[in-house]
Amino acid sequence: MTTAEIAKQLVELCRKGENEKAVELFYSPDIVSVEAGEMPQAPREARGLAAVKKKGEWWRANHTVNSAKASGPFVAVDKFAVGFDYDVTVKATGKQMKMSEVGVYTVSNGKIVHEEFLYRAG
Amino acid sequence: MTTAEIAKQLVELCRKGENEKAVELFYSPDIVSVEAGEMPQAPREARGLAAVKKKGEWWRANHTVNSAKASGPFVAVDKFAVGFDYDVTVKATGKQMKMSEVGVYTVSNGKIVHEEFLYRAG
Repeated sequence: MTTAEIAKQLVELCRKGENEKAVELFYSPDIVSVEAGEMPQAPREARGLAAVKKKGEWWRANHTVNSAKASGPFVAVDKFAVGFDYDVTVKATGKQMKMSEVGVYTVSNGKIVHEEFLYRAG
Repeated sequence: MTTAEIAKQLVELCRKGENEKAVELFYSPDIVSVEAGEMPQAPREARGLAAVKKKGEWWRANHTVNSAKASGPFVAVDKFAVGFDYDVTVKATGKQMKMSEVGVYTVSNGKIVHEEFLYRAG
């Protein structure tokens, strides 16, 4: 599968809220996932499919997604980017917040081997 | 200067159409600039400040910018991303077109050392 094909399908799955399925289908066992900063529950960098799935499970367990929008994909030879706009409620506090981020994905041998998230600032 | 400060100022300069000034202020002499694909006039990768300036000059000489929008910045520790939406006219053909891209910038020692552009697909 080309970078463009993976990018398109990942965006379609995220639009349907099926982010987990994108991980199953397209992520390498050796995926490295990097957040813009430290997360409350985890280090900035997660290595390996099990760690990445665990991070996703934590996210879904602790947030209610009120709305989610995916923009793109934006594609180069072995990379693609997707813009995400979320409106979520933190279950523990009931606090509702908007978050915008860009995910930058690197593809190697038909699998996503690296993802990095950059958060909206300023 | 931090990554966030450079990111914010680059976006402000791009919004004013002063992209050249951002190159002067924030780019390393060893900048590497990577396009999503081959350009008609240049290789995909430009190395060094002179090559990057030349690419910008070519762009400005051959396109009329009807409108430009910059979204972001989206920031991590040593990287930031900016979304760009352009409406341009190709001077040689008179063809008007819309382009959307994401620029991903890497900062080292207070200078931008790498930029990569991903183009809107699908």
